[in-house]
Amino acid sequence: MPASSLPPSPHVAIVGATGAVGVELVRCLEERNFPLASLRLLASPRSAGRKVRFRGQTLTIEALGDDSFQGVDLALFSAGSGLSKVYGPKAVAAGAVVVDNSSAFRMDPDCPLVVPEVNAETLAGHHGIVANPNCVAIIAAVPIAPLARAFGLRRVQMATYQAASGAGAAAMEELRASTQAWLAGAAFTPQVLPHPYAFNLFSHNADVDVESGYNGEELKVIEECRRILGAPELPIGVTCIRVPVLRAHAIALSLEFDRPIDPDLAREVLAAAPGIRVIDDRTRNHFPMPSEAEGQGDVLVGRVRRDLGDPSGRSLALFVAGDQLLKGAALNAVQIAERLLPVPAASAPAGELVRA
Amino acid sequence: MPASSLPPSPHVAIVGATGAVGVELVRCLEERNFPLASLRLLASPRSAGRKVRFRGQTLTIEALGDDSFQGVDLALFSAGSGLSKVYGPKAVAAGAVVVDNSSAFRMDPDCPLVVPEVNAETLAGHHGIVANPNCVAIIAAVPIAPLARAFGLRRVQMATYQAASGAGAAAMEELRASTQAWLAGAAFTPQVLPHPYAFNLFSHNADVDVESGYNGEELKVIEECRRILGAPELPIGVTCIRVPVLRAHAIALSLEFDRPIDPDLAREVLAAAPGIRVIDDRTRNHFPMPSEAEGQGDVLVGRVRRDLGDPSGRSLALFVAGDQLLKGAALNAVQIAERLLPVPAASAPAGELVRA
Repeated sequence: MPASSLPPSPHVAIVGATGAVGVELVRCLEERNFPLASLRLLASPRSAGRKVRFRGQTLTIEALGDDSFQGVDLALFSAGSGLSKVYGPKAVAAGAVVVDNSSAFRMDPDCPLVVPEVNAETLAGHHGIVANPNCVAIIAAVPIAPLARAFGLRRVQMATYQAASGAGAAAMEELRASTQAWLAGAAFTPQVLPHPYAFNLFSHNADVDVESGYNGEELKVIEECRRILGAPELPIGVTCIRVPVLRAHAIALSLEFDRPIDPDLAREVLAAAPGIRVIDDRTRNHFPMPSEAEGQGDVLVGRVRRDLGDPSGRSLALFVAGDQLLKGAALNAVQIAERLLPVPAASAPAGELVRA
Repeated sequence: MPASSLPPSPHVAIVGATGAVGVELVRCLEERNFPLASLRLLASPRSAGRKVRFRGQTLTIEALGDDSFQGVDLALFSAGSGLSKVYGPKAVAAGAVVVDNSSAFRMDPDCPLVVPEVNAETLAGHHGIVANPNCVAIIAAVPIAPLARAFGLRRVQMATYQAASGAGAAAMEELRASTQAWLAGAAFTPQVLPHPYAFNLFSHNADVDVESGYNGEELKVIEECRRILGAPELPIGVTCIRVPVLRAHAIALSLEFDRPIDPDLAREVLAAAPGIRVIDDRTRNHFPMPSEAEGQGDVLVGRVRRDLGDPSGRSLALFVAGDQLLKGAALNAVQIAERLLPVPAASAPAGELVRA
């Protein structure tokens, strides 16, 4: 089998099946009727033996090991970049195509970095490993790409409102538990995140590059958006902030184009683009919110208006929200896998995923 | 007594003394040792008779009425623009200077719109009413003004992270109660804000101008920042978002200047400016947070770095946080009043306010 495609009904493995993203990977495969021959769930030894339901069957979590990928055609990794670097090449050597949710291979020129709505054509150049982008990069790229194609993009400015889920299931639990403690007047010492999270927000916890002042999340967003959009010099300004929301990110975007922009025309372009649901009801003050993005495969896009910070009229402001665990991670990975099938899978459209 | 100044020890009234801002007005007067001869607390009839402690004495809330301002030298209003429009002129007619926290007079050319660190000199032109700006406008103007003076400001871009307190005490309680319900798995119907607030965020609830797509909060921020900064044509792009935080706003700012900007020099300018505490520790990932802004009079400023969205090097990115009820409202009003005293009050510096 060539490394560039999957058999019609592949044998699939998920690495990190018990994590926040892993659970959603299992759910996406089931809900999208991904045409798989078998599913192997891999995790750390301490999770081995746990049971997971899939299509009416009970699967048992296995411990990840060197021979976990025998007979596997597709391996979906979501267990951190360290494990991806070690086990990704082993899976490829065993004959699998890897779709990796970590940052390990995202800037490797041999590994396409793919948002299927945006740059699915780059999949043709893979050598066994396809990288799933950073969650903010995905959720931003989905609406930016069609606008860039239509109007010619010059500059991007973004401020993020990022959910706990980006830091994993333990961070989601820390948000819940610390908020519960706060409301009860009880003390709480953060274990997962570096700052109090209850009714608070803070600059993203990724390490800060002391020279530039940008943190690792922001640098990923800049580099990955440039690569996904095929615009290696695109100026991108970004501030990444963690907010007390559980699993959907939001982003305030300002996009500068080559020419003056008509917001109504931009909204039409967005409405016609794949993977987007426009929610832009000025009369009812109804715009994208995390509470409505949760469980949705589409990126919600609204507040489409002229950016008054640019007197030339060439800039557009938007506000978007997307489920960090779905389109920001698991769903995008499964959509990549669907594009690797020899014939398109008869899958559900993104928007019909049930609410988590 | 000329309307342009107060006696050394004025008789003071607070209108809206039981509201979220009113409570902080009482506290600021006490903690800053404001040299008052007497304090009258005014509110709606249903609050009349309630007792409030002030400097070891017990004051009784009185119902606001037409003769509430007899003998009053200074009236601090925080009861909504409707009451300000009706009772503000009555207070002036009775001989008081009004410092009004509502939006009623903010764009009236006869009423200075004042952030004392920025444009105290405009107080000289008042005709009895001084307007206290919108909370975001104040918290943004404090760091923008010294940078604008030092480097020449061309454009402003901001995305806000606004606390519940901006919508009043009832909104703060709705955030607490809805979060408690969410954690308990109970239903909750929003009463104060238009959208679910527990672990959610949404575009600011002010009415949206259907033509431009900007909401009332954003239009206030634009107009008021221009007026405070004395830059009536300044291009300002802004997205106002309500986040599940109780009482401190944060803002991601991008400022474009006339020339390429050195972030280290900008940080020095900020550190030397009044009303600012620089928190910009890249090594420890310690930057402005609402949890540390709460109870502080200073605006916290950090993440001072070159904005990579502007390849000319003329733009600076910042992240700021300020207590919405203090510098965003009550403290700024009291600081205005201090500037109206014939001699500067021997008050505590802003940063020493105790944590609420």
